[in-house]
Amino acid sequence: MAETHASRRDRLRERITATGTAAVLVSRPANIRYLAGSAPVGATLLLAEGGDLLVQAGPPEPRPGTPQPDDTLPTRTLTGPREDSAVTAAAVAAGRGLDSLAVEEHHLTVARHRAVTAAAPGLRLTDLGGAVEQLRLVKDEDEISCLRIAAEIADQALSELLESILVGRTERHLALELERRLVDHGADGPAFATSVGTGPDAGRVGHRPTDRRVEEGDFLSVCLGAAYRGYRCEIGRTFVIGTSPADWQVELYEAVFAAQRAGREALAPGAACRDVDAAARQVLAAAGHREGLSPRTGHGVGLENNEDPQLAPSAMGKLDARVPVTVEPGVHLPGRGGVRIDDTLVVRSEADGGPELLTITTKELLAL
Amino acid sequence: MAETHASRRDRLRERITATGTAAVLVSRPANIRYLAGSAPVGATLLLAEGGDLLVQAGPPEPRPGTPQPDDTLPTRTLTGPREDSAVTAAAVAAGRGLDSLAVEEHHLTVARHRAVTAAAPGLRLTDLGGAVEQLRLVKDEDEISCLRIAAEIADQALSELLESILVGRTERHLALELERRLVDHGADGPAFATSVGTGPDAGRVGHRPTDRRVEEGDFLSVCLGAAYRGYRCEIGRTFVIGTSPADWQVELYEAVFAAQRAGREALAPGAACRDVDAAARQVLAAAGHREGLSPRTGHGVGLENNEDPQLAPSAMGKLDARVPVTVEPGVHLPGRGGVRIDDTLVVRSEADGGPELLTITTKELLAL
Repeated sequence: MAETHASRRDRLRERITATGTAAVLVSRPANIRYLAGSAPVGATLLLAEGGDLLVQAGPPEPRPGTPQPDDTLPTRTLTGPREDSAVTAAAVAAGRGLDSLAVEEHHLTVARHRAVTAAAPGLRLTDLGGAVEQLRLVKDEDEISCLRIAAEIADQALSELLESILVGRTERHLALELERRLVDHGADGPAFATSVGTGPDAGRVGHRPTDRRVEEGDFLSVCLGAAYRGYRCEIGRTFVIGTSPADWQVELYEAVFAAQRAGREALAPGAACRDVDAAARQVLAAAGHREGLSPRTGHGVGLENNEDPQLAPSAMGKLDARVPVTVEPGVHLPGRGGVRIDDTLVVRSEADGGPELLTITTKELLAL
Repeated sequence: MAETHASRRDRLRERITATGTAAVLVSRPANIRYLAGSAPVGATLLLAEGGDLLVQAGPPEPRPGTPQPDDTLPTRTLTGPREDSAVTAAAVAAGRGLDSLAVEEHHLTVARHRAVTAAAPGLRLTDLGGAVEQLRLVKDEDEISCLRIAAEIADQALSELLESILVGRTERHLALELERRLVDHGADGPAFATSVGTGPDAGRVGHRPTDRRVEEGDFLSVCLGAAYRGYRCEIGRTFVIGTSPADWQVELYEAVFAAQRAGREALAPGAACRDVDAAARQVLAAAGHREGLSPRTGHGVGLENNEDPQLAPSAMGKLDARVPVTVEPGVHLPGRGGVRIDDTLVVRSEADGGPELLTITTKELLAL
């Protein structure tokens, strides 16, 4: 993997030196992990002539169970509790006589930016912008296999939950149980806070589990994800509790199911992100659902759970092969509840078999 | 509570208008929660002539189980997936003809700061600095009772774990079990990622649980906290596994215990933060432990787990009554493990009975 990270740093270096900037200071944790193999708390990565350097805050000892930076990458560890690794990294760059430094203005706070400027008065600071995020957009097959394993873990955790009795249990306990099973099956941990919604809260985006108990006749919606070696997948399903779903529940489910399928089928290299969103949205609109829709129907995943691309009406850009995204349309009817169906897929060309579905749990309407 | 939040906003307003700034834009979530009662994801709070305003990103519907902003506080909800509440709030301030706006430069990124400037060209932006954090330092009795409940929950979760069999279980599972019990007892959730360290990793600050199993003769160190109504306590204990601790374990434990007691006893209104740190540190040094100490022996707690004051050699400032802090000295011997003892206390005057211990789990060396 060390070679992988080194070559990623080389690609970034090429892009930046082409703009005439001598050095790069990367502060956003996911970007550091992408380029260095790990992102110790409070670390900053310097890419510059004279050699790359990872400046990390304490503790100096490596922690078992957490990834370590490439041993090929020189590191320096700060000792003071309040030292800023970005300031130290900038001082190193200035000490090498470099004249310009690109920083992540979308991550660095105004106060830290000022401290960096003060520590290296000779340096001209420029904006790196989302250059690293751009590199992260298209995944290599090693990254995709991490996502595949993360998806398998989430599928397992979900399938085990479905075998247990659900009626009478609270949203909170179901969420905790799912997170425990994720870890049991080898996840680093949950990819994000597991969402479990019942009854009127089913199908609500980002619903935080409460002490409400599962009841007969409820919709039950679950959204969870596993992180594996830092890579985060996402799966969401909606079920009905009890033997016979009501007609409105069946109709709502079928509409969301059709919309989600339309979104999945619209995934292809070269497809405009907004067109994928529109494909799902049109199906819901045709079924009379223009209200209670979330502003987007999907997003990229990788080292962060919410990466570009965004699948939304206002989204710019097109999809590429090997870009993993979620497709997660849903409808929430205030006071009644709703349905959300969420898969993680990898965009693939027709020749490569089309979109690769990572989350394989059934999307039939299960009555539990 | 609405009155409480309103009066906090008034106090902040007084401080700022005294500096000649017309309006305040608060973006840091814990600060928004302190001033508004809740901090919806991506929200920004504007305090300005013409009325305060909370600008929040979607979803527009309130989520059960999560705190809501004061109904006395006007709110506006953004619709677009990528709109920035800080930009909207600044535009509102500019629209009211105000000339200056204080922002949190230690929280706002350079990119957001630029977007705020562009959205309100007439506004002169100043730095609010840590003004809200300063207000948050001394807690009122309502806040302290939330911390007291959080501590009770953490004590309960820990005591239940100690009744179970520990040998053979992994650090990860013990951590998950503790977090489940925190929620069982009414916590919003863990105050931070629960740390469980065994054998050579016992006593290591911020150790992330691994799949290592508890063995006879191990030190087992646990650090956990509960969040209750947003307020976060912290407790850390170290145990030995098996019937008879080794001499080096007993000696190390006694040294850390004495240091932690010295730190607790040094807590008083008017005491210098660095003197509290020194009180604990000197005991460890006298016992021959100058290496493997963490850079600080405690920190403030409240709406965030790691607030000011810092108890460290370089810390400035003095303690006040009603400031809750942790006292958590520890020693880690590479390859052998270590001991950490961590309590949350509230600084009180002698007349009020001295430091109030919130985490009451025994600090005897338990052999489990």
